Amino acid sequence: MKALEEKILSEGTVLPGNVLKVGSFLNQQMDSDFIMEIGREIARLYAGENVTRVLTVESSGIAIAVAAGIALHVPCVFAKKHRSANMPKEVYTASVYSYTHKETYEIAVAKDYVGENDRVLIVDDFLANGNAVRGLMRIIENAGAKLVGCAIAIEKGFQGAGDKLRAEGIRVESLAIVDAMTDESLVFRAQ
Amino acid sequence: MKALEEKILSEGTVLPGNVLKVGSFLNQQMDSDFIMEIGREIARLYAGENVTRVLTVESSGIAIAVAAGIALHVPCVFAKKHRSANMPKEVYTASVYSYTHKETYEIAVAKDYVGENDRVLIVDDFLANGNAVRGLMRIIENAGAKLVGCAIAIEKGFQGAGDKLRAEGIRVESLAIVDAMTDESLVFRAQ
Repeated sequence: MKALEEKILSEGTVLPGNVLKVGSFLNQQMDSDFIMEIGREIARLYAGENVTRVLTVESSGIAIAVAAGIALHVPCVFAKKHRSANMPKEVYTASVYSYTHKETYEIAVAKDYVGENDRVLIVDDFLANGNAVRGLMRIIENAGAKLVGCAIAIEKGFQGAGDKLRAEGIRVESLAIVDAMTDESLVFRAQ
Repeated sequence: MKALEEKILSEGTVLPGNVLKVGSFLNQQMDSDFIMEIGREIARLYAGENVTRVLTVESSGIAIAVAAGIALHVPCVFAKKHRSANMPKEVYTASVYSYTHKETYEIAVAKDYVGENDRVLIVDDFLANGNAVRGLMRIIENAGAKLVGCAIAIEKGFQGAGDKLRAEGIRVESLAIVDAMTDESLVFRAQ
């Protein structure tokens, strides 16, 4: 998605520790019209796949996941990062290690919100080490649902997790893949 | 918004402690098309108010806030609930007490994402005791921005926080106001 690459180049900044900060349009602040464009692009890529449900994890994936849900006209579900007071007792859970926050957290989805007849599309803003996606995959597997694929806004290709998933036969569509990243330059994979 | 009241009656459940659970369409699972309808209704209510920015707090407010942003064609910003590793150092913060989780947390918005020329619309899924809205109002005030008003999906009218804000001259538009709630029945305020 050319528009995303251009937006990353013009508004993104590289921080120490291989962090690509895109908080001005994709995370803490969201360019709403652009988020909807991303949602439409995801819907275009997975058209004909009979997706019944979009699944993401709170918080930063919610905006593009709901935009994809709007474009696909299917419900969007987000995994919560810890069991909250209002969470139904019956949940599917998975443990996820976050390199950003240097901690392991539980993600949980109520059993009511994903089932064996579902064809699930995982949506997230970033794919780096793949831990969040792997956690969501375990939840989909536990629910007996079918994973249709993953739709990611920005994949850090140099971390290899996306290509590992592809090698396992999982469809991973990333709207921009950063194959190299320094303070001075970003190299996008040709797609 | 009649459609929201009907959805609450058909899909919502009342849990102990005055909790109204609408996780099947508004929170953990989101009825994407309906979320977009809510966004459009918020945009209709605040049309002509020259809103420049929608502000919410993670996580459950993000979906309708971004839908409102899409419908208003303005950026959507969410306050983070604690300072994260990727958070810019320059942030506006406020303390918020959560009755649901029985704890006080910090909310923070990067100074880059709200400024003195902004006309800000606060959007959230619930208005109960008003603590989250008050925290967002302090951030708007600290930024020197103008609060245009609040757009809430479901207001718990019986908790009084919405009417207190209105009495202070703040515009609060709630798409459904629950004035009484028991296991057996919900009473909506006529609007």
